[in-house]
This record gives sequence, structure tokens and C-alpha cells, in this order.
Amino acid sequence: MTDLLLRNVRPMGGPASDVLVRGGRIATPGADATGTAVEDGQGMLLLPAFVEGHTHLDKTTFHLPDWLVNEVGPRIEDKIDSEREWRARTGHDAGVASLAMARAFLAAGTTRIRSHVDVDTSGGTKHVEGVLATREAMRGLQEIQLVAFPQSGILGRQGTETLLDAAIAMGADIVGGLDPCAIERDPVRHLDIVFGLADKHGKPVDIHLHEPGTMGAFSLDLILERTRALGMEGKVVVSHAFCLGDIPERDRDALLARMASLRVAIATTAPASRPVPLVAPCRAAGVAIFGGNDGVRDTWTPYGSPDMLERAMLIGLRNNFRRDDEVAIAFDCVAAAGAKGCGFADYGLEPGARADLVLVEARSLAEAVVTRPARRLVVSGGRIVARDGALVA
Amino acid sequence: MTDLLLRNVRPMGGPASDVLVRGGRIATPGADATGTAVEDGQGMLLLPAFVEGHTHLDKTTFHLPDWLVNEVGPRIEDKIDSEREWRARTGHDAGVASLAMARAFLAAGTTRIRSHVDVDTSGGTKHVEGVLATREAMRGLQEIQLVAFPQSGILGRQGTETLLDAAIAMGADIVGGLDPCAIERDPVRHLDIVFGLADKHGKPVDIHLHEPGTMGAFSLDLILERTRALGMEGKVVVSHAFCLGDIPERDRDALLARMASLRVAIATTAPASRPVPLVAPCRAAGVAIFGGNDGVRDTWTPYGSPDMLERAMLIGLRNNFRRDDEVAIAFDCVAAAGAKGCGFADYGLEPGARADLVLVEARSLAEAVVTRPARRLVVSGGRIVARDGALVA
Repeated sequence: MTDLLLRNVRPMGGPASDVLVRGGRIATPGADATGTAVEDGQGMLLLPAFVEGHTHLDKTTFHLPDWLVNEVGPRIEDKIDSEREWRARTGHDAGVASLAMARAFLAAGTTRIRSHVDVDTSGGTKHVEGVLATREAMRGLQEIQLVAFPQSGILGRQGTETLLDAAIAMGADIVGGLDPCAIERDPVRHLDIVFGLADKHGKPVDIHLHEPGTMGAFSLDLILERTRALGMEGKVVVSHAFCLGDIPERDRDALLARMASLRVAIATTAPASRPVPLVAPCRAAGVAIFGGNDGVRDTWTPYGSPDMLERAMLIGLRNNFRRDDEVAIAFDCVAAAGAKGCGFADYGLEPGARADLVLVEARSLAEAVVTRPARRLVVSGGRIVARDGALVA
Repeated sequence: MTDLLLRNVRPMGGPASDVLVRGGRIATPGADATGTAVEDGQGMLLLPAFVEGHTHLDKTTFHLPDWLVNEVGPRIEDKIDSEREWRARTGHDAGVASLAMARAFLAAGTTRIRSHVDVDTSGGTKHVEGVLATREAMRGLQEIQLVAFPQSGILGRQGTETLLDAAIAMGADIVGGLDPCAIERDPVRHLDIVFGLADKHGKPVDIHLHEPGTMGAFSLDLILERTRALGMEGKVVVSHAFCLGDIPERDRDALLARMASLRVAIATTAPASRPVPLVAPCRAAGVAIFGGNDGVRDTWTPYGSPDMLERAMLIGLRNNFRRDDEVAIAFDCVAAAGAKGCGFADYGLEPGARADLVLVEARSLAEAVVTRPARRLVVSGGRIVARDGALVA
């Protein structure tokens, strides 16, 4: 059933109206609704379903019966080693983990996800296989993009490049990369491999760039240089891009102008504890910036949630967005901006868009972000997939 | 009924045990429980009820039927003017507002609150009267401290000092202050009035210090000087103290050492969008630092929540607390550290403490902070005051 009439809903908090879905898509206002199943929206707020633009479905412990006590040391190497040791010890199954996590995202109103998925010489492409199975299981309900992500680097581990190549061949959508200077210690070789694979397979790129300050700005410069040289405008995302939060504004704005002209987007988790690219100057420069959790309850962090309204709130808090029109921008980061940045098609509430919809009890969009009310209804492709926070059969 | 036997609960996430309450206080283990009403804790996590160490009960719009659209300008003067204009236009009733907010805090497990309450030449002591009425209404269920807070400054508005004096005389517990340099523009006169009132009435002090950098450090220096001169060790709180987040560490640590020796505490809201005093160096120096919302859904901000576990999460995120033992510190900021910093007596889970307790479904303390589960039971002074998030009659 992909026809549906939602009666008495308030799109984006505006006036109450009826929204008709035909063939899984939002119909033109006034189209014939005869015979269509009707859902009473009771004046609730209607939102487009959410977009998770940067997460790691394969890493989560969300589904496990026991709480994972985090006793990890402070260095990034501690965290990488801890994760590898934990996986080996527990036989972590990325398929089971990612499916549980994807379902939780769907129940909370997210129908589009970009997931980075570890590819390394310990696990090979096992995690990619697991998340590909989840993508199949969720097909028609949720669109999942896979980034083949070299979490342990490419250059230090012989064979990783081949594994990335295999991951793309078996169905991963995007080539990942990681800190070309700070972790890889050879930015040219790292980026040549990442962009080389992208060029070979005709795939986009999404690079984790945690590097701060001028080092990060240098790596970003090299990324933009390759984006232009390979004609990859609109096909590159830089995740985190923390450097844009701690270089002089003049240098930041020069980089943002180049990113805008190359249509390079930014994925942000808006962490509270370090400098970040701020949303307002990115948007002012014409750069798409969108939100994601990063990991959700994994060996790296106990935080994160399948509720993208919570991420919108954290983006709002990080950017000191207090006015309603500013909170709407925070929401946009987990909605239209996410769809644009990740290249998810047919997004939104306009006629013709895929009918991926969420109903919540809230008086305004801003209230939905700051209170994160229960999802009363989630619709995907015109089908009701969740009620009151629980998936329907 | 202030006797109660809580069966099968896990204090702070430890092993399951029974907790006996006698005469509103936690009894010695093994004390006779004959004839006591029994509540089955079902293995849930038992926490001491929470402490809100810095909020503004009088300002909230939490109780209003309509969502307040925030269209306020960017300057602090815009926000102050907007609030004054809104109050005049709507006839805002601080008594009604604060009671609704206090009840919401109680339902979410908070039994101790320090509320700053506006005192100015527009509203006089009207807000103090309103929150005093709320304190009376909540007596026995919730302990509320009132800070007489000169939101619009003292020096620029003739008569404010007299109003603060009257507010203390009518029952406010603490003398408030505000940015001695940046807003008052005469730090010595401002602090002499604040500390003079405190000295006259034998009351503690709690000063809003938003001033950044060396200006804030200078004001803090003057505050510490007066604390020592008046023998007010253990009776001064500095709220926000943002300057401690953006001065050189050596200068910060010198100030922290003086604060520790004078037992001056810090209230933090841990905002994500600006430098803040970090929890770890404060605690390492021996300075009590505790958490609060600041305003909850008022004309200043749409954010904030009566759920202090959410504030603990935001403190954890702001301080990059990821390990379970670090997340426990974030919780401590809305628990024991808050009680210590505000001077709330008889706090905790030890025998003899007032039986203010919360039960939640969580496997560990860290999980309670990161997932903020529904409050299954809230106990105040041994009485069950809320179940499943709703107050009992």
C-alpha cells in the first residue's frame, strides 16, 4: 500500500492541511484521493523523514544485551587498538549490529543513511558484507549508502587498497579516506589512492578529516586540487573538517569559496568539545553542511542516538542557534541539506518527492528539535513503517 | 508515609540489593523492615535524586499553551529588552511559571533546585514573591534555593539595591550579582554592594560571570579578594565563569588554586558554543563544579529540559567524557557535586541521607546518562512522588 491520505497535518509547522500520497510519492495538491486509506494526523507536525549523513552502522554495540564498559585510554591509537581487540574477542557481527541500528533509525524517522564501513586487513571486507546485507534487508524502507572506510589507514597496512577496491566492486557506493597527514603521514600517496579508486570506479569520495589547523587546511587544499583535476565537482564530501573551526576566518572563507565552487560538502557531528566548522559561514559561502552522529554507542563513544532530532538539537546548541529560524537551519542539517550533500534523490515535502514522512506532536519545528517528541508515525515510500516509536510488522 | 523498602535495586549500577527508608531517611543496612511498604525495584538502577544548580524558574515559558517564537536579535541587550517587552505584553506570572517548572523537575527526578530570580526596577520583587510561593507549595517535596538576581544590573537602575535588600528580607537565600565589568562597568561598586548585602544578611553569594578572558579573570580576582576579606569561605558560587575556559592554563590554575582554598564553587551549564571551565582541571584543583540548565525554554533560549540526566549528558559531551568513569563525573555534576556546591544537606545514598531517590531502567550509570530513560519512580523524603514520569496525587 503506497497510497495514503494524511488528514489534518501541519507541514513544517505551517497551517493544517491534507497531504496525499500516490504511488509512494507526494501527490499534487487537489489530486483525486478517492478510495485512498486515510490516516488522521490530529493536527500533528509533519516533517520529511530524516537523513543520517555520517554514521558507522557496523561499529555499534546498540544491539548487545550487556552494556559495554568504556575503559579506553586517551590516545586515538588506544581507541583503534581497543576496537580491534574487542572485535576479535567478541566475534562482533557487523551484519547483526548494522541491521539493529538501521531498524532503530527507521523507527525514529530516518529513511536515508550514509554509513562509513570499516575495511582493513584484520576484518577484510567482512563489515562491508554485513552492511550490504542490511542494505538489502532494508531495501524499499530505507536507503543506505556505504562508504568503504579505511579506519586503520591504507599506507601502513599492505593490502588495504586491494580490499577497498574489492569493497567497491561488491557494492560499496563511495570511496573513503582518512587524515592524509596525521594518520597516513603521506598525503599525496593516500589521496592518490583514494581518488584513483574513485576515478577507476566512477564513485564519489568521503574523507574523514580530523586534522586540526593548518595541517588540516593543507590536506583540504590537496583534496580540492584533486576534486578539480578529476572533474569530481559535486562528488566529494569532507567529514568533520575540524580545521575549518580553528584557522583564521580569512583562510577559512577562502577554502569555503573553493569548496562552494567545486560543490564539496561537509558532514559535521557538531561535537561540543572541539573546534568545528560552523554552519552559518558554510551556508553563507554556499557550502552544503549536514549532520550525522558519527558512531552510536560503540567502542569509541557511549553517546549518539538513532534520533536525528537529537543530532539537530546538538547542532543547534553547538552553533548557538536560538531563534526559530536558526533552529530550522539545524533541522535542515538532518533533512534537506543531508539529502543534498549525500546525493539522496527525491527528498522533501514537495509534490513528486518520495513520501518519506514523520509525524510528531509539536507546536513548531523548533519545539520538535528541542523536545524530540516520540515519533507518532513514520512513513517510507508511502507505507506506514512505524507507529509510536516501534516498527510495524 | 515516609517508610519504604525498595527491593531489588542496583545503587549507582552496582549489585542488586534492598534499600530501606525509615522516617524519610536511608536506613542502616540490616535495619528491621517489618511492616514497611514494599516497592519492587525489578533490578532497576537506583540513583540519588538530581540537583539543578543553576536555573531561572521564573523566566520559563514551559507552561504556556502557545510556542514562543524566538525572533530576538543577536546582542545581549536585545535579549534583555525582548524579555522585558514580552513580560509587559503577556503579564507573565512568575509564580505560575515557576510552579509548573518545579513540578516538571520533580517528575523528572530533581528534588533540589537553585533558582536565580529576577529583581529589577520593572518587576520589583514580584518574581521573588512568585518563586517563594512555589517554594512553599513544594515544601517537603523539593528544596528550592532563591538567588535574588539583578538581571538588569544594579548600578544603572536606581533602587535595585533596595529591592535586592527587600528580596533577601522576604526570604531569598542568596545574593546574586552580574558581570561586574562588562555590564556594570564599575566592578568595585558592584561587588561592594553584592558582598555588602551578603555580609549584612549573613547570606551566601552567587554571581553570574559571563565575562571572557582577562576581563573575567580580573572580576574573578576581585570576587576572591572579597570572599577572603569577609571570611566567606564556602559561601560563594561563581556561575558560568567562562573566562576559565579561555585564559592561559597557568593563569587558570592559579585562580583555581585560590578558589579551592576559599571553597568557591563553579556552576556550569557546559554550553557547546563557547569556551567554558572544564570539569577535570577544576576537580583536580579541588574546586567543586556542578551543573545546571540556565533558563529552560524562555525568551532567551528554546533549549533546556527539566531532565537533569540530559544536562549530565551535555556536560559529558562538552568535556569529551567517554569512559564510564568519566561519564560518572558528568553525573556527579548534577548530583553530589551540586549538593555540595549549593550547600544542600543530607544528600546521597548513604545511611542517614534524606531518601530522595530515582529508579530508571538502565544497565549502568553511563547508560542512564546517555539514554536518559523514563523515570520509573521518584521518591522524595521517603515518599513516592512520581511514577513513569508523572507526579502522583
